[in-house]
Amino acid sequence: MLKVYEFKGFANPARVRIALAEKGLFDKTEFVQINLPAGEHRSPEYRAKNPSGLVPALELEDGTILSECSAITEYLDGLSGETDLTGRTAIERARINMMQRKIEQGFLGAATDFFHHATEGLGPDVELYQNADWGRHQLDVAMKTLEWMNGVLEGQDYFAGDAFTIADITAMAGCALLDFLKLEIPAGYKNMHAWHARVFARPSAALAA
Amino acid sequence: MLKVYEFKGFANPARVRIALAEKGLFDKTEFVQINLPAGEHRSPEYRAKNPSGLVPALELEDGTILSECSAITEYLDGLSGETDLTGRTAIERARINMMQRKIEQGFLGAATDFFHHATEGLGPDVELYQNADWGRHQLDVAMKTLEWMNGVLEGQDYFAGDAFTIADITAMAGCALLDFLKLEIPAGYKNMHAWHARVFARPSAALAA
Ligand SMILES: N[C@@H](CCC(=O)N[C@@H](CS)C(=O)NCC(=O)O)C(=O)O
Ligand SMILES: N[C@@H](CCC(=O)N[C@@H](CS)C(=O)NCC(=O)O)C(=O)O
Repeated sequence: MLKVYEFKGFANPARVRIALAEKGLFDKTEFVQINLPAGEHRSPEYRAKNPSGLVPALELEDGTILSECSAITEYLDGLSGETDLTGRTAIERARINMMQRKIEQGFLGAATDFFHHATEGLGPDVELYQNADWGRHQLDVAMKTLEWMNGVLEGQDYFAGDAFTIADITAMAGCALLDFLKLEIPAGYKNMHAWHARVFARPSAALAA
Repeated sequence: MLKVYEFKGFANPARVRIALAEKGLFDKTEFVQINLPAGEHRSPEYRAKNPSGLVPALELEDGTILSECSAITEYLDGLSGETDLTGRTAIERARINMMQRKIEQGFLGAATDFFHHATEGLGPDVELYQNADWGRHQLDVAMKTLEWMNGVLEGQDYFAGDAFTIADITAMAGCALLDFLKLEIPAGYKNMHAWHARVFARPSAALAA
């Protein structure tokens, strides 16, 4: 049995839920809720599991803890012989890794900064340092990245090419966060809208939140 | 022949230089300088290669461009049968990925934010948005991450265990940036100092800058 520490409905936990579902491991996983607005992720108990105090974290049967969605997904993908989410050859793996990183930093991560710094975020008890100007700047970054993402999808169905990968999962989490923030993908970004319909129709998306 | 777009002496280019040297590919690489303080990385020509306008980027013989140090390193590592820098088994790969990410975000990335936001950074022509308060906050984050890194090294020689990996390369780049900023690893962080002596004695380190 795998164990995942998460806070249901949040963007990063959704990444691991989608990966678990895509790999057929969702039903073999126990989910433990860590209440973020209540600051449970800052407790010494949870920090002993993940020193960065973030969710999600994956606990293996032998007690090993993995954190960082990209690392967790790499592990889950590697469990099966078929590493379809993170790639098979050196060039395929590198391309997927590159797209994942760019979307993680420029879109999901930047939108997360907006949430923590320019909105109430997780509330005054948890947000001990806020910088609204930085948060607004990062929203600009996220929206510029979205424009670039729309361009990447010109002539291809998924962010790393013609197959669904971890890069799409990270982008899905970013879109879920935009939704939560009541921000919209600009209507003119046709490729983004078509991609959105495509990936959110996957069974894994229904298990994400 | 591999081609690397870089700016010699800077932290992220150093990561790829070290990876190339570790994989025995340094002499098979042509290095092209992109002058950052002169803003050459913002030119349409370079942005066509790497839309995020950052160095380094790797150009393969067929014209394929890879950016993001972690992706470039994954590619170089995968070229050889022996993926010693990024790991072999699922769990090993995930652990290395996790450590790399934590050090990239919490140490190198945070120190980079300090450089761009709370110092002159690349100069007024390039630093179009600065937020000094954010920069100082990120220096705190970098120094807290360094404390955690010192703890990780308790009882192990390298960040992902008993072998040198991409996680150590990222940490080396962070240390090079601290040097450049004239900031020091606190004297009490004995494990960090021992690790520093160990990794900077590698032949690859001499080629980094
Ligand atoms: N880079 C991390 C990001 C994880 C993350 O930021 N998680 C959020 C929830 S979506 C969190 O735990 N936030 C708590 C906080 O910021 O205090 C990953 O890939 O897992
Ligand atoms: N995440 C990127 C970071 C690259 C990066 O930040 N490079 C710096 C040089 S050390 C740069 O190009 N800075 C130019 C700028 O910020 O304008 C990677 O892994 O390659």
